[in-house]
Amino acid sequence: MHAQNPVFIPGPTNMPDTIRKACDVATLDHRSPAFAAMFRPAVAGVKRVLKMDAGEVFLLPATGTGGWEAAITNTLSPGDTVLAARFGMFSQRWIDLCQRHGLTVEILETPWGQGMPLDRIEAALKADTDGRIKAVLATHNETATGVRSDIGGLRKAMDRAGHGALLFVDGVSSIASMPFDFTAWGVDIAVTGSQKGFMLPAGLAILGVSDKALAAMDSATLPRTYFDLRDQQKGYAAGGYPYTPPVGLIAGLARSIELLEDEGLDAVFARHHRLAEGVRRAVAAWGLEICAASPALASDTVTAVVAPAGFDGTEVVKLAAEKYHVAFGVGLGAVAGKVFRIGHLGMLSDVMVLSGLATAEMVMADLGWPVRLGSGVAAAQEYFRGTVRLAAAA
Amino acid sequence: MHAQNPVFIPGPTNMPDTIRKACDVATLDHRSPAFAAMFRPAVAGVKRVLKMDAGEVFLLPATGTGGWEAAITNTLSPGDTVLAARFGMFSQRWIDLCQRHGLTVEILETPWGQGMPLDRIEAALKADTDGRIKAVLATHNETATGVRSDIGGLRKAMDRAGHGALLFVDGVSSIASMPFDFTAWGVDIAVTGSQKGFMLPAGLAILGVSDKALAAMDSATLPRTYFDLRDQQKGYAAGGYPYTPPVGLIAGLARSIELLEDEGLDAVFARHHRLAEGVRRAVAAWGLEICAASPALASDTVTAVVAPAGFDGTEVVKLAAEKYHVAFGVGLGAVAGKVFRIGHLGMLSDVMVLSGLATAEMVMADLGWPVRLGSGVAAAQEYFRGTVRLAAAA
Amino acid sequence: MHAQNPVFIPGPTNMPDTIRKACDVATLDHRSPAFAAMFRPAVAGVKRVLKMDAGEVFLLPATGTGGWEAAITNTLSPGDTVLAARFGMFSQRWIDLCQRHGLTVEILETPWGQGMPLDRIEAALKADTDGRIKAVLATHNETATGVRSDIGGLRKAMDRAGHGALLFVDGVSSIASMPFDFTAWGVDIAVTGSQKGFMLPAGLAILGVSDKALAAMDSATLPRTYFDLRDQQKGYAAGGYPYTPPVGLIAGLARSIELLEDEGLDAVFARHHRLAEGVRRAVAAWGLEICAASPALASDTVTAVVAPAGFDGTEVVKLAAEKYHVAFGVGLGAVAGKVFRIGHLGMLSDVMVLSGLATAEMVMADLGWPVRLGSGVAAAQEYFRGTVRLAAAA
Amino acid sequence: MHAQNPVFIPGPTNMPDTIRKACDVATLDHRSPAFAAMFRPAVAGVKRVLKMDAGEVFLLPATGTGGWEAAITNTLSPGDTVLAARFGMFSQRWIDLCQRHGLTVEILETPWGQGMPLDRIEAALKADTDGRIKAVLATHNETATGVRSDIGGLRKAMDRAGHGALLFVDGVSSIASMPFDFTAWGVDIAVTGSQKGFMLPAGLAILGVSDKALAAMDSATLPRTYFDLRDQQKGYAAGGYPYTPPVGLIAGLARSIELLEDEGLDAVFARHHRLAEGVRRAVAAWGLEICAASPALASDTVTAVVAPAGFDGTEVVKLAAEKYHVAFGVGLGAVAGKVFRIGHLGMLSDVMVLSGLATAEMVMADLGWPVRLGSGVAAAQEYFRGTVRLAAAA
Repeated sequence: MHAQNPVFIPGPTNMPDTIRKACDVATLDHRSPAFAAMFRPAVAGVKRVLKMDAGEVFLLPATGTGGWEAAITNTLSPGDTVLAARFGMFSQRWIDLCQRHGLTVEILETPWGQGMPLDRIEAALKADTDGRIKAVLATHNETATGVRSDIGGLRKAMDRAGHGALLFVDGVSSIASMPFDFTAWGVDIAVTGSQKGFMLPAGLAILGVSDKALAAMDSATLPRTYFDLRDQQKGYAAGGYPYTPPVGLIAGLARSIELLEDEGLDAVFARHHRLAEGVRRAVAAWGLEICAASPALASDTVTAVVAPAGFDGTEVVKLAAEKYHVAFGVGLGAVAGKVFRIGHLGMLSDVMVLSGLATAEMVMADLGWPVRLGSGVAAAQEYFRGTVRLAAAA
Repeated sequence: MHAQNPVFIPGPTNMPDTIRKACDVATLDHRSPAFAAMFRPAVAGVKRVLKMDAGEVFLLPATGTGGWEAAITNTLSPGDTVLAARFGMFSQRWIDLCQRHGLTVEILETPWGQGMPLDRIEAALKADTDGRIKAVLATHNETATGVRSDIGGLRKAMDRAGHGALLFVDGVSSIASMPFDFTAWGVDIAVTGSQKGFMLPAGLAILGVSDKALAAMDSATLPRTYFDLRDQQKGYAAGGYPYTPPVGLIAGLARSIELLEDEGLDAVFARHHRLAEGVRRAVAAWGLEICAASPALASDTVTAVVAPAGFDGTEVVKLAAEKYHVAFGVGLGAVAGKVFRIGHLGMLSDVMVLSGLATAEMVMADLGWPVRLGSGVAAAQEYFRGTVRLAAAA
Repeated sequence: MHAQNPVFIPGPTNMPDTIRKACDVATLDHRSPAFAAMFRPAVAGVKRVLKMDAGEVFLLPATGTGGWEAAITNTLSPGDTVLAARFGMFSQRWIDLCQRHGLTVEILETPWGQGMPLDRIEAALKADTDGRIKAVLATHNETATGVRSDIGGLRKAMDRAGHGALLFVDGVSSIASMPFDFTAWGVDIAVTGSQKGFMLPAGLAILGVSDKALAAMDSATLPRTYFDLRDQQKGYAAGGYPYTPPVGLIAGLARSIELLEDEGLDAVFARHHRLAEGVRRAVAAWGLEICAASPALASDTVTAVVAPAGFDGTEVVKLAAEKYHVAFGVGLGAVAGKVFRIGHLGMLSDVMVLSGLATAEMVMADLGWPVRLGSGVAAAQEYFRGTVRLAAAA
Repeated sequence: MHAQNPVFIPGPTNMPDTIRKACDVATLDHRSPAFAAMFRPAVAGVKRVLKMDAGEVFLLPATGTGGWEAAITNTLSPGDTVLAARFGMFSQRWIDLCQRHGLTVEILETPWGQGMPLDRIEAALKADTDGRIKAVLATHNETATGVRSDIGGLRKAMDRAGHGALLFVDGVSSIASMPFDFTAWGVDIAVTGSQKGFMLPAGLAILGVSDKALAAMDSATLPRTYFDLRDQQKGYAAGGYPYTPPVGLIAGLARSIELLEDEGLDAVFARHHRLAEGVRRAVAAWGLEICAASPALASDTVTAVVAPAGFDGTEVVKLAAEKYHVAFGVGLGAVAGKVFRIGHLGMLSDVMVLSGLATAEMVMADLGWPVRLGSGVAAAQEYFRGTVRLAAAA
């Protein structure tokens, strides 16, 4: 009888009932106008969420990893060079993917807990006088460390360097929960997945692709079929797909966008900021640190809590699951054991966050961490009390 | 994005997904063997939950109020006398129902916050030397005050009085969440509703009826058709109903019983006791009182928290709904404004309770009640930490 | 793998997915504005479907039988006389209910297969010079025989008799599938259930009550509590219920009305007429008769097919269920064995009807009935082909 | 009100309610034991359905096309040669995929309507004395033409040729609806998708991979990350995935296998054969031909009906959708316009098939095809009547 405890993993997120129901579609003919009528609003909605005023959106039956692969294979050729910072597990995985596909990755090693090193990127681009670097890979929100990077700043750095590289942004754990501006930031490909800010089950890789990136498709020679966006484009023009689309997820995506826009995107972002700030106040009240090296870097969708010396963050996650049936995220890669993570993206309320904080407190106490019961909850309560806008129950 | 906050009303309760899905049945022929195959296990399961070893269970398309009416109209005749204590809104409503149907109700006025006055009942029965009193009405769990009565003790009192009255028990907010023993307690009719301990939507009145009560049906002359249990009996014998049954609720009831028995009824009762005790520790830590006049009377399914002098409990409920989208119960009748109620029956976990307590704290602080943020949560956390049995996540 | 065959019982009907989902509501506080926001549109929608311009609609957690009981007990007193024709199982059941509640029923025995005998009713009313008759009970659509009665004509007959009796109409198997005009027909109480034209699960009795009938409530002395419409009225005024309402069914009813009005009520009625006519053409092609004594009496929601001499209609129903997993309706009461019934109300398409006809043909052939395979299907196909309006797939 | 008409496209198929519900899973932690407990039975079940006694099953968040790509990229290297027959749209697409990934495809052009040319394959393998051919691609069931190929015979031909090529089988529209024997046929990779015989939504590519094929992974140098089965293997060993798995589809797959095994795989295959034979009898009664060149080639999951001279099969599909809201499949590629296709795989009953046949008849009549209404239905009815085994309704 604990099945309804919220999850606090940094995705998949808790899902609203209405989205789950929207995903549960009786079989329809995906070559019929009925499907096109469902598909087109989803695509148009994603463009609004990403703030795209040109280019194309693609909805691939895959996860975010598939989205990364699609970004690379549709625009680059074997031997091409890309520039990336490595400062967390997800930036690392994207680098690895590039390498497996025969790209050369110029890696800027960056301490975990830091964001993208804009000055070093600028320098690397300036140094690339012969235009070897075809694309810059940016991890907007490092889910492993709870660190956000400044993509608008990155665009400015690229502009200052006067470099024409494509800008690819991993927005998997940021898009639809934190501000994102495809157009203003000059993004060429943005990648996310259905199971994060869109609050859907996993299974849909969502890509926003600029006209510049679309133009790169014809010369790109990395092999691809399943992820070949040219086939997708042809299908979309006819209201369909080159293969059987995940109809339910697309219907759910359309519903998700309705929910997001009913709440208002700015209100959604403000809600996540408020929830995140409540979590951070709790962590501070516990006397603990977060992994993000500075307040400006702190993510609004996931917080990595640093274990005190002598304690193991993974134990928090294990015990919370076993004893209280609540899911948090473990530390990954370089911060394995050193942190535990509280996801706070997607469908979430202040009340739900308080149950997560209360659970974390019990577990830390159980494990002997020097944390006082109720202390983090009280700090979050105090913050939440003062920041809710009184509104009629929806 | 607050739709998934738990509710803390004393019913309807939070519902497990699996029960909601079980209730959602495609249309089938309710005169077919397929329906009988669904219906019979539900009836048999209710017998086990009530601990009946004889008699019959009836599942009526109605609410608990309909169950009360069925109990009365099937066993009594105009002018008959019943004995009842009035000590809360629900005992009051049952009395009112009897009066509307032309029964004489001998009422034992009892302070709200007390349980059934066993000694006065015994005395009244002893005084009834000519057997005027045909039935004793007992409210097992007064939902309005969070008070449980001692039905086993009531049976002993009736036995001591040597009185042959029928014993009718309103177990609407107790059955399937608190111990109930139809056989040992010599209950003649037990009434509950689907939306409480069985964690279903409202719409099913559930009655356990003893052979003695069944035998009373033929001489009872109160008019009834919809609730006529003789028609039901005839239908059940053929695996069906005298009218169209609520197939989904019956399927859901069968699923509910599976869940309850998978957890184990004793474990279910222990869970509710633990959750209730956590709530009571929180109330004590807030420096507040509960409505139940003594610890032994405190219900394990709902706690009525008494507002401090000068404060209005109803305001807590209103503000919690408006500001935090969390539902508590208002005070009813004689305790309107004097209490607010925290329901903790049905599908609920310790983690969910903590979110309710945290919310109540915020609201009380918002309203200027002398309650320290985190205090009740900490008391409940401390209690919950020590009382959970470590088990593998289900 | 046959679970998705349509049902052809005369209710409960096949249900649209969207209605099933609307019924599946997470628990909400039924005393909150959120419930009122769900409840009021359902009530207003029923008024539109019934074509009421005054009076009140009540949604009771019960079935149609409960609706009948509510109609009687809220307006009449013990010993009152009502006038009714008996011409099928459902008119018989309503008569029986009245008798059990101590009313005197003046019964006009009428052959099964006929409709209400308007001339005899007029005569009976004219003969009732001292106003003994308080109400006329009318079965709009006799589900047992597939016969519709002329309620507009009945109103004229009552007017010609100059009699002030209330007019109570059982519209259980007609409302929302066949034309109904509460206002023009001067109906005082109309009763239906959720599981018929509204395509919901069973569990909601739906009543339209005129101001004249409402005014009768205060003097009516038949006992009632669960069905007391005065309590309902008080609750509705506050946006709520005197007890826990069936929230899911009410939400589903609101959705049902959206579907009906999106299609257009006249289009819904035309659809049922077309489907019924297809069934009747098939029956004629089989060389069989229907129970309705004349074409004008033939119901658009259910067709009772008369078994040829020497054959048993019930066998069709049994074999269809066992061999093909398709549900038809058996004959009831006076026509038990003499007919089998094909329900065609609620959510149904021409294509679904064809599968029912094809199944009935196989079964009749299996049983040795003199029916040629494909003959009824072909007749219905021919009719359906010519009567569909070409429209874009929804 | 036509949303519940069955679909007759050759996938996605009609879905049982219970599978749809199983797919609708509240968010859980996919790194938890709860996920492993859901995942392992699904993998084990697929092995039983494929009749694998060694090797590994992979469940990729993709469609069948992704499964093809995974088969190729995990076992082959740029420049490798594969042998394939081209005799329909799906064999063509797989060939195209290989070519895009830099493989050399030795193509055996084969008339559409024929199956795989075993003798020519044998000859080609015998001629490949230097072992250039690394894999033979076999399309078990050509969905475009409704033709099944003899995979057991293909294995024998390969054995006679004494050639060690890998055997890759596209079983997308056969597996779980038609007999398949991974072990006996010596299959190295079998590919299917969730939306066909498994009756799930699209979104899961399902691969059975032999130990021999697994051994080929390390030397294969085609680039892949998303589809890299080595990453999957590592994840599976820990009960998880290299990225977020589609939890709902995996839960649904486990439920699907329960349904298939409850019915019995042989009974499932027999059911599809019976339904297919009913369709073929109807086509014959219409006086039309099917695309499959001989009875032995006729698929049990999809029938391509050849349009008479002067008529366009695509018009049938268009008009059926517009006028009757029923989905059939158009002809693709070389048979575009020349056929229309009736899918009869997945969840389907004889009664549902009859509604499809009746609809096709109406449409053909509407379009002036020389087809008599009811003729095909009657032929199918006659066949279905004689071949159903009388069983109690489930």
